[in-house]
Amino acid sequence: MALLDEITGPADLRAMSDADLETLAHEIRERTIDAVAAHAGHLGPNLGVVELTLALHRVFDSPRDRIVWDTGHQAYVHKMVTGRAGDFDTLRQEGGLSGYPSRAESEHDWVENSHASTSLSYAEGMARANQVLGRDDHVVAVIGDGAMTGGMAWEAINNIAASQDRRVVIVVNDNGRSYQPTVGGLANRLTDIRTNPRYEPALGAIRERLNRGGSVGPAAYDALHAIKKGLKDVLAPQGMFEDLGLKYVGPVDGHDRKAVESALAHAKRFGGPVLVHVLTTKGQGYDIAVANENDQMHQAPQFDRTTGDAVSVAPAGWTSVFRDEVVRIADERPDVVGITAAMLYPVGLDAFADKFPDRVFDVGIAEQHAATSAAGMAMAGLHPVVAVYATFLNRAFDQVLLDVALHRCGVTFVLDRAGVTGDDGASHNGMWDMSMLQLVPRLRLAAPRDGARLRELLREAVDVDDAPTVVRFAKGAVPADVEAIDTVGTCDVLARGDRQDVLVLAVGSMVPTCLAAAEQLSAQGLGVTVVDPRWVKPFDPAVVGLAAEHRLVVTVEDNGRTGGVGAAFTQALRDVESDVPVRVHGVAQEFLDHAKRPVILERLGLTPDAVAADTHAAWLRLTGNNADV
Amino acid sequence: MALLDEITGPADLRAMSDADLETLAHEIRERTIDAVAAHAGHLGPNLGVVELTLALHRVFDSPRDRIVWDTGHQAYVHKMVTGRAGDFDTLRQEGGLSGYPSRAESEHDWVENSHASTSLSYAEGMARANQVLGRDDHVVAVIGDGAMTGGMAWEAINNIAASQDRRVVIVVNDNGRSYQPTVGGLANRLTDIRTNPRYEPALGAIRERLNRGGSVGPAAYDALHAIKKGLKDVLAPQGMFEDLGLKYVGPVDGHDRKAVESALAHAKRFGGPVLVHVLTTKGQGYDIAVANENDQMHQAPQFDRTTGDAVSVAPAGWTSVFRDEVVRIADERPDVVGITAAMLYPVGLDAFADKFPDRVFDVGIAEQHAATSAAGMAMAGLHPVVAVYATFLNRAFDQVLLDVALHRCGVTFVLDRAGVTGDDGASHNGMWDMSMLQLVPRLRLAAPRDGARLRELLREAVDVDDAPTVVRFAKGAVPADVEAIDTVGTCDVLARGDRQDVLVLAVGSMVPTCLAAAEQLSAQGLGVTVVDPRWVKPFDPAVVGLAAEHRLVVTVEDNGRTGGVGAAFTQALRDVESDVPVRVHGVAQEFLDHAKRPVILERLGLTPDAVAADTHAAWLRLTGNNADV
Repeated sequence: MALLDEITGPADLRAMSDADLETLAHEIRERTIDAVAAHAGHLGPNLGVVELTLALHRVFDSPRDRIVWDTGHQAYVHKMVTGRAGDFDTLRQEGGLSGYPSRAESEHDWVENSHASTSLSYAEGMARANQVLGRDDHVVAVIGDGAMTGGMAWEAINNIAASQDRRVVIVVNDNGRSYQPTVGGLANRLTDIRTNPRYEPALGAIRERLNRGGSVGPAAYDALHAIKKGLKDVLAPQGMFEDLGLKYVGPVDGHDRKAVESALAHAKRFGGPVLVHVLTTKGQGYDIAVANENDQMHQAPQFDRTTGDAVSVAPAGWTSVFRDEVVRIADERPDVVGITAAMLYPVGLDAFADKFPDRVFDVGIAEQHAATSAAGMAMAGLHPVVAVYATFLNRAFDQVLLDVALHRCGVTFVLDRAGVTGDDGASHNGMWDMSMLQLVPRLRLAAPRDGARLRELLREAVDVDDAPTVVRFAKGAVPADVEAIDTVGTCDVLARGDRQDVLVLAVGSMVPTCLAAAEQLSAQGLGVTVVDPRWVKPFDPAVVGLAAEHRLVVTVEDNGRTGGVGAAFTQALRDVESDVPVRVHGVAQEFLDHAKRPVILERLGLTPDAVAADTHAAWLRLTGNNADV
Repeated sequence: MALLDEITGPADLRAMSDADLETLAHEIRERTIDAVAAHAGHLGPNLGVVELTLALHRVFDSPRDRIVWDTGHQAYVHKMVTGRAGDFDTLRQEGGLSGYPSRAESEHDWVENSHASTSLSYAEGMARANQVLGRDDHVVAVIGDGAMTGGMAWEAINNIAASQDRRVVIVVNDNGRSYQPTVGGLANRLTDIRTNPRYEPALGAIRERLNRGGSVGPAAYDALHAIKKGLKDVLAPQGMFEDLGLKYVGPVDGHDRKAVESALAHAKRFGGPVLVHVLTTKGQGYDIAVANENDQMHQAPQFDRTTGDAVSVAPAGWTSVFRDEVVRIADERPDVVGITAAMLYPVGLDAFADKFPDRVFDVGIAEQHAATSAAGMAMAGLHPVVAVYATFLNRAFDQVLLDVALHRCGVTFVLDRAGVTGDDGASHNGMWDMSMLQLVPRLRLAAPRDGARLRELLREAVDVDDAPTVVRFAKGAVPADVEAIDTVGTCDVLARGDRQDVLVLAVGSMVPTCLAAAEQLSAQGLGVTVVDPRWVKPFDPAVVGLAAEHRLVVTVEDNGRTGGVGAAFTQALRDVESDVPVRVHGVAQEFLDHAKRPVILERLGLTPDAVAADTHAAWLRLTGNNADV
């Protein structure tokens, strides 16, 4: 029986010998690789935090001491040592273990949000609460150097450092990466440290002193601290933290468990806010991951663990169509530039960056800055294309509204992973964008139904130079092109019946669902028009007029039902004094549990059968149970 | 004729003698005081930047060099020296000068947004554009120490510092204040500098060297720099900026125009990113403002310039009702704490803080952190009340959604200045909250109609411990209490006719308007029910059912029409398969020019006459032009 399977909770770790802990670390890595190879998931980040996680749970007393994982995709090891190792074969399966911390799974999990840079704020709030309530528990936030580029981290550090009597330990897991290498002034400084030739000998000296001391008591820490002191100007970005009043410890070799424990133990004893700087290697212990220059297998599909190769190659998706077309546009338009928030490859700006390295900017995990700096660029004569996952644009609502739209800046936002994404849980779904963005005056929003439309709408978007434009598309494979049989205004008519009974407004990736539903309804004798509006904000008056000529309108979108395209279309009809009934289909406005995308869509009623059945029932109510009126 | 009236643009400043510039500074202060005394506006911040603004326009060549004012309320002086001094008697009047930079007014104005911490991002974007387009212009961002607490500033600095070849000058206008004294680790460090006994002599020495040199050439700067070097550990927070790779110049006495010019000239010559740290005094030159301990007359009502006293005392507003009630709640509930984002007095948390200083937290201009740290506090056993202006909650949409609501945290957000605010322009209106927050699952949203309801709903909100709650109210005077004549579920019936013709859903401060409109409609023979739902999310099913029994539904809200309460109520009706027509009244979804609140409401059709007329017309359409059906 593996040691790992005997671990019922963190207390067991504290009773283990060094040798057993080493064996355990090995077992954890093997199980992580097996689970991700079988089910896909986050590999590199979890392999990088094995020793750090063991050290955290040996030094702190979770759940009494609260450990908050920033972003949460590096919590597999934490899950294994808090009683969930045996469930790892259910990773990311419906009803199985979540790929992120989950409060339903364990009392050791506090934060299940996947958006970056939040951990320090949670921790600061928890520590203030401890202070108000007279508790002396510790709060530990584990944050990557990548997430430190997010503004929230700064807001939190500024607050944490303001008072010396709150027990917050900030562990910076510095692997030099988010998805891509971390960028910015802070990252440059950290890179200086990692690449300084004096770094290795210094760590060697630290190790030696620790080994000689044989314990993780104060003396060992003091030795470490003394060594660091002498090298501080070379090794530590402590000026910036100490200027804020924050104690700085490190850098520590994050794969030397004892060294990490020593640093953490000191931080714990200090009793006030401390930053512990831990250097780790993404993918550590799995050479294939470490050698992956792209992202150290940050998020891996199912793969063969001997070769690291994906088991099956996903069909070319929406991202690759955008990736290709944006380069063509950049070729023609020297004023077009690209902006990514630390996700060059995932959003498909890599080909653009390869061809025009001076025209693609990685701003870090900083969506607010991405939007507002894009406004600045537009004011100064460029047309920026900001490519982000749809869910992350929520971070920049105020900036899109007041910095871009109010100032009439021509900035194009490209939202990947819009709609239901599935496996990664509630916070990854891109189900908010088409509602949130409806509120932004002047903004134009397009939802392409297929690859041809993505190319076409992207070009139309980039041609707008006095307002923000948005092009949003789903995760995964791009469906076959569907050609229009006619147009109304700027909208495409995709199907038409004998009579104008029902108009189906089919939004983006919901077009195939709508066409299939329309077929069922036609077979039941209804005259059905299917229209893809292409631009869902503002609506072309022609499609509003056409809808008003029908007896029933049905809207279908892969977005929250509240305040989305259907709601806006309903209002547009009312504003032309049409009272035609509208049935709005979309994602229920609730947090969705993780499951495969088709399973979720089925559950939400976003299938041809469900849409057809609801439409038919509405039709019967409308016509007094006589379908053939 | 005043010197000020001869200034047609910044070039004129560059030809002036020192003596004339001193006279000009005096004239600018006088005119600023006169304009604010007459029309209300931002006083303290503008008096503090007179010399800084003159220096900026003498050293840089606006508009070729772009000067971006963070927050924008300190741009009066900039307006005067860019050709608008003669218009200052129209300040903040409809059709007159805006209280913020305005692109329609001048080519010298770039950013008209009033939300804080954006300037560095604009500047970074403009500088990248200059680089891409091969221009050598400078970009200057002027940001207060208060705005430096916002996360966007960090995101931008991290990007600005990443490359040494972009010409960005960051001027930190350090007056130690936002509304209240700036908080946090950085502020503590800056306070150390300002209060250090070595600071005054050091500045004296700098002045002496400059006077001896007689010029602002490189030598003068070098002298200054040498002196600073010697004192740097005492005087400068440069460790943090230099760790990021950002050149730091300062601190400079911001009321010594020559010293500021010298520092700026050096920064300009450097050709890369530089931070210039300027120390100013809010209210400088008007003793009454400087002596105002509350906020140095940050934003003043019309006042008597001899005494500084307000011309008329505003009637007790919504804020004062909240201010009073939250203390009562805090008295009874030791777990209730208050959070403000740098606006303790404006949001009315000051009485709470006076009584329980350890239970009210100012987090800086950091709405994201406010929300997520509140979630952390809730997880750890407190019930936070986060009080912010409605428009600023836009900054924390993602945090309210994923950090508070997803985690089922009991946090109460109190939104002051919701709805149309008027004078301060587009970005101050709180017209987004009731639409944006409709998207947040689990969240409960209340819009009190009067003081009694504010007290009552605040208590109901604070009693919810497993979801975010929001209480929102308008700017200004609180209307007289309106008692219910009946209830349906949790909703109040305020008026009822003989028949159920029209149901008016009256939201919050729109209740008086709706009651007046209902009276007109009743006089025209319609049976009108007026309901205040109190909680506008989720709706009590009883009010949806009652509405479905009417023949026409009218909703009236002081919030954007798109995706707001009316849209949600329409959907709620459709979801119970009611097709009753709904007329949605609200704020047109567009950016509103500055004007008085009643003028804007009139223009938007949010008056009794307009609502009654639209309702009557809809009724006639519905009943075939026979009102008496």
